[in-house]
Amino acid sequence: MDSQTTVAGEATTRIRLDIAYDGSGFSGWARQRGQRTVQGEIEAALEVLLKRHPPVPRLVVAGRTDAGVHATGQVAHIDLTADQLAALSLRRRPGSKGAAANRTTDADGPESLARRINGIAGLDSDFVVHRTTVAPTGFDARFSPVWRRYVYRVGDASVARNPLLRHNTVWYPAPLDEARMNEAAAELLGLHDFAAYCRPPQEGATTVRTLQEFSWRRDADGVLVGEVRADAFCHSMVRSLVGACVSAGRGVLTATRVGEILEERVRGSEFKVMPAKGLTLVEVGYPSDEELGARAEQTRARRAPLD
Amino acid sequence: MDSQTTVAGEATTRIRLDIAYDGSGFSGWARQRGQRTVQGEIEAALEVLLKRHPPVPRLVVAGRTDAGVHATGQVAHIDLTADQLAALSLRRRPGSKGAAANRTTDADGPESLARRINGIAGLDSDFVVHRTTVAPTGFDARFSPVWRRYVYRVGDASVARNPLLRHNTVWYPAPLDEARMNEAAAELLGLHDFAAYCRPPQEGATTVRTLQEFSWRRDADGVLVGEVRADAFCHSMVRSLVGACVSAGRGVLTATRVGEILEERVRGSEFKVMPAKGLTLVEVGYPSDEELGARAEQTRARRAPLD
Repeated sequence: MDSQTTVAGEATTRIRLDIAYDGSGFSGWARQRGQRTVQGEIEAALEVLLKRHPPVPRLVVAGRTDAGVHATGQVAHIDLTADQLAALSLRRRPGSKGAAANRTTDADGPESLARRINGIAGLDSDFVVHRTTVAPTGFDARFSPVWRRYVYRVGDASVARNPLLRHNTVWYPAPLDEARMNEAAAELLGLHDFAAYCRPPQEGATTVRTLQEFSWRRDADGVLVGEVRADAFCHSMVRSLVGACVSAGRGVLTATRVGEILEERVRGSEFKVMPAKGLTLVEVGYPSDEELGARAEQTRARRAPLD
Repeated sequence: MDSQTTVAGEATTRIRLDIAYDGSGFSGWARQRGQRTVQGEIEAALEVLLKRHPPVPRLVVAGRTDAGVHATGQVAHIDLTADQLAALSLRRRPGSKGAAANRTTDADGPESLARRINGIAGLDSDFVVHRTTVAPTGFDARFSPVWRRYVYRVGDASVARNPLLRHNTVWYPAPLDEARMNEAAAELLGLHDFAAYCRPPQEGATTVRTLQEFSWRRDADGVLVGEVRADAFCHSMVRSLVGACVSAGRGVLTATRVGEILEERVRGSEFKVMPAKGLTLVEVGYPSDEELGARAEQTRARRAPLD
């Protein structure tokens, strides 16, 4: 099962991390000097855990979320050297004494890593590592995914605002028509160039994506929950798609016009990019273990997106 | 429908306020010098709205929640003079122009008060006034209630911690047995002296309460949700009852012992008072309009509790 990769010529084992966070207190995922980021916090914990066993592993992630965006199903990977794995396996386990402390199997090191990171972060932390597991051969958190799924939450004027939900819900001070929002969402489904619904990409990067699912429902509190799934997303794409649906729900844009804007491929001013705090990455889909390597090669070959 | 009371000899109209808040950023409900409290914030907004029409009305509340406790269904009242009511009714409504600004009915003043307070607080505030309505005759937010309902949220080790829920959920780092928690809760139902489950009350105050409902279930995320209803609660009572159930769920206390502690009426050390942040006041029950006056008299007569 070991995913053999190399760090400075040494064979390493790839570990998959499943991660959740409240994005409110982070300047996004990606490590930035002088900023508190999710990657920065987890790598700082790894540095504490492996301080006598350099180098500090670097996280590679499925979705590089922006500042304020949340995740309940983020996925990342790190590569650990044999020395690092051994260090994690031999560490004394809490509550165990004497000989029992060393009664660990090879698997204990990777699987206890989540608990060790969470121990440093604390029980009430704004991020948590749900699982750390040895990744199957060919697994790459960034290049292997076949889809990403996000949800966006908007409470319109029909909802009794619950301040406890404000961290991941955008309050919209007018009524929104759910049926119209679904009509607009349906216009966007399928394989398209989403240039009109993305921030301008880096030179030469594609804005062609396949929007696999996009629909709206009201939850038990009446909050409008948009569920969006695509092979990948370009920058601020979900928040733009949601902005178009909100304009449709308000009666400002027709569903037909939402589809026309898509075809025009020009970023205009007919809808707003919605705030980051309504957005949560909820799931990343990976292919079966056998197909993993092929998928990563294929994605790399077409200079695929980051998120 | 006007509830005629008096302020400094002048006839006033009683207004009921339905309020929700995230308790995290407040030093509780009650106004305290130099502290941010829910009462303090709402009264400050009233002071802005009625600055030329003193005196600033004082809020009387159903449940004086402690620091860190939340509410989705808090109820309070204020008494407004005819001058204050008129000032609220004549205020220009947002978006209206010229003559339309004065096209208001008598009811507009009280009913627009919620919108005005929320306008000052802002859309992303940690408190919100859901409704302001003219109270029926005899209504008293503090003395009229026939019951208060709270929920308490505990995520045990079986739950994948979602950091977005941490503001109103206590994470408990071990598994808890829901069935045992329900057995313990059942032992506490009914009319009892809850001295063993309350902070010592003020001299002469009673700790006799009727626990009408107390049960545990897991929500969609697996979080244990305790629902508690009583005629009233003494200080830290819900958090103590929950502490006893958690000890039972952990297997440290038997349900029988939870009942024995109740009968012994002595506050001991067999369970912990659980943290405030897991607790939310969700509903206050009032009698029908006809019975309101009688209920308030009855409650006042037996020096009733505050919460």
